[in-house]
Amino acid sequence: MQITSLVTGGAGFIGSHVARHLLALRHQVIILDDLSGGFTSNVPQGAIFIEGSITDTTLINEIFAQHHIDYIYHLAAYAAEGLSHFIRKFNYENNLIGSINLINAAVNNNIKKFIFTSSIAVYGTQELPLKELQKPQPEDPYGIAKYAIEMDLDNAHKMFGLDYIIFRPHNVYGPGQNIGDKYRNVVGIFMNQISKGEPLTIFGDGNQTRAFTYIDDVAPYIAASYAFAKADNQIFNIGADTENTVNDLAKEVGVAMEREVTINHLEQREEVVHAYADHSKFTEIFSPKPATTLAQGLQETAKWVTQHGARESGTFDPIEITKNLPKSWQ
Amino acid sequence: MQITSLVTGGAGFIGSHVARHLLALRHQVIILDDLSGGFTSNVPQGAIFIEGSITDTTLINEIFAQHHIDYIYHLAAYAAEGLSHFIRKFNYENNLIGSINLINAAVNNNIKKFIFTSSIAVYGTQELPLKELQKPQPEDPYGIAKYAIEMDLDNAHKMFGLDYIIFRPHNVYGPGQNIGDKYRNVVGIFMNQISKGEPLTIFGDGNQTRAFTYIDDVAPYIAASYAFAKADNQIFNIGADTENTVNDLAKEVGVAMEREVTINHLEQREEVVHAYADHSKFTEIFSPKPATTLAQGLQETAKWVTQHGARESGTFDPIEITKNLPKSWQ
Ligand SMILES: NC(=O)c1ccc[n+]([C@@H]2O[C@H](COP(=O)([O-])OP(=O)(O)OC[C@H]3O[C@@H](n4cnc5c(N)ncnc54)[C@H](O)[C@@H]3O)[C@@H](O)[C@H]2O)c1
Ligand SMILES: NC(=O)c1ccc[n+]([C@@H]2O[C@H](COP(=O)([O-])OP(=O)(O)OC[C@H]3O[C@@H](n4cnc5c(N)ncnc54)[C@H](O)[C@@H]3O)[C@@H](O)[C@H]2O)c1
Repeated sequence: MQITSLVTGGAGFIGSHVARHLLALRHQVIILDDLSGGFTSNVPQGAIFIEGSITDTTLINEIFAQHHIDYIYHLAAYAAEGLSHFIRKFNYENNLIGSINLINAAVNNNIKKFIFTSSIAVYGTQELPLKELQKPQPEDPYGIAKYAIEMDLDNAHKMFGLDYIIFRPHNVYGPGQNIGDKYRNVVGIFMNQISKGEPLTIFGDGNQTRAFTYIDDVAPYIAASYAFAKADNQIFNIGADTENTVNDLAKEVGVAMEREVTINHLEQREEVVHAYADHSKFTEIFSPKPATTLAQGLQETAKWVTQHGARESGTFDPIEITKNLPKSWQ
Repeated sequence: MQITSLVTGGAGFIGSHVARHLLALRHQVIILDDLSGGFTSNVPQGAIFIEGSITDTTLINEIFAQHHIDYIYHLAAYAAEGLSHFIRKFNYENNLIGSINLINAAVNNNIKKFIFTSSIAVYGTQELPLKELQKPQPEDPYGIAKYAIEMDLDNAHKMFGLDYIIFRPHNVYGPGQNIGDKYRNVVGIFMNQISKGEPLTIFGDGNQTRAFTYIDDVAPYIAASYAFAKADNQIFNIGADTENTVNDLAKEVGVAMEREVTINHLEQREEVVHAYADHSKFTEIFSPKPATTLAQGLQETAKWVTQHGARESGTFDPIEITKNLPKSWQ
């Protein structure tokens, strides 16, 4: 019998790639996405697309009544980490309550496995490299919600036997990314600014470092993970090992887009300065291919951005707290 | 100028005592309670009572627009820890989202201090005695929500300067307790069963231990804490030091109610077996009076229960997950 997988957030960046890989693995793929941050143009051909929210319990129950779902790939979220301070209620309602709806459905429908994209945001500032054995201490509501979902999943496993796999990706970029959201995805923001002939904006001095991760080094493994029994009820950091400063990234993006870049440094904002993760646990279980270089990955992304053009970024509404909101976000 | 304090859950057990102590400290007291687990008969004279939910953002904004609130004492929650596995969504919506509404309002209205009753449920199974420096690892959705609120408060402190005090009480009992909720408060459940001439029900062998805490050893300190500068942005275990098994408790309750008791052991349920907390941090800052003995405390409680009579316990609706739900809760 054909395996059926529900991919939430499947019209989004990582979700659409995961959905595509699942289709290649011959799953029947059902995508649930409210298009708040995704695009129907991302939905891969062959997937069943349902427009709606993971916060809609009635809809979720309908989907599970209509389809025999084997696996849930839960990627739907609003992943604007820095903004989450200012949209706390939205953050927890959309990301946490939405996830709880799916966990309830997973338990009630005896789903085989619940595969969840958490984030390295759960770690907060800790000794580097970040390892799965370190106790999370998230420093923003986005990370707190992700950590709460992780704990709830583990509890649902112990209480009801629900199996799960948790991935903690970081700084993923590539074709299909939402480049029109000024609150997140620095690669997307830079490429969008270049497309519009604007200077690149960097919070603070730009010496903060991240390990930027190309989508092809992430999505295929998330998709295939359901078949890795050793991954059951485990947590995996997933992503690139090479760190770059945001200043370096700006230069490399300029090269990939074949443009001169000018940089506009904004006031520093509250964020983790350095973050890189240890991926030995992931490597041991999944034996990934060698990682894409930043230059290669940015070139692929630039190609896609050039084809699709710039996007306008709206302002998130409603902002719940305006105190200490970075000026460029007002 | 008179100090104004908002007490959420002030028609409930601990909240109504805290409100009474605040009135004695000459605060203007506003109580917000939706009466889902509280009673207007608990509301102390002199308090302004508003019936409504902490999940109602519009109402909260109205309250903050109408009153100049100095302190928030946030006690509103549905505190049925064992049931929270089966009502996950309700748990997070009521307890977490409700709290986030109040944190947003606290930041936006420059509240002086946010005093929150978390729970020792945040610890989960750990080395005993439980100490504030141990990293929480909650084992049920109730504890996960409490821990998420603690983290969010700490984040709001760092991000927006909101001062807080977090108390982690455990096993509080006394006059004013909701004895009509079969899902929680073992002292209340026992007294209610005795009042109705029923056998006492105990999950498992009854050898699980708890340190039962009399309300007068908790509520006055929570109320007065706003004036203890040393308590700012700190977390305190609060409660009794003496452990008893649930079997012992059953006997003592019989003595206090002056009745023979028979015990009906039910199947064991998922719960922490032993839990007792270290209170040295609390003792150092608050220099509490000697604790009430269990016999004394139960006598006071029995007196109140005898005056007020038994209560009928409804069944929580809707239960979201029925898998593994203890039979007596179905
Ligand atoms: N991109 C990264 O670097 C990164 C890093 C760590 C974790 N993650 C996680 O990976 C997942 C996917 O992120 P992404 O980068 O692809 O972001 P994305 O915005 O491109 O995709 C998220 C998708 O979820 C959808 N969505 C949001 N809220 C929804 C709701 N309530 N109901 C239904 N659909 C909803 C959006 O419309 C969007 O299509 C997220 O859970 C994110 O937190 C991403
Ligand atoms: N009693 C204990 O042993 C204990 C232990 C640890 C922590 N706590 C915490 O102390 C606080 C008070 O507990 P309690 O024992 O007095 O319980 P309680 O049920 O007597 O009081 C809680 C009150 O909150 C109200 N409430 C619930 N949801 C609400 C909502 N959405 N909006 C407005 N009001 C709402 C209820 O009506 C009730 O009056 C809770 O936060 C609980 O988690 C209690």
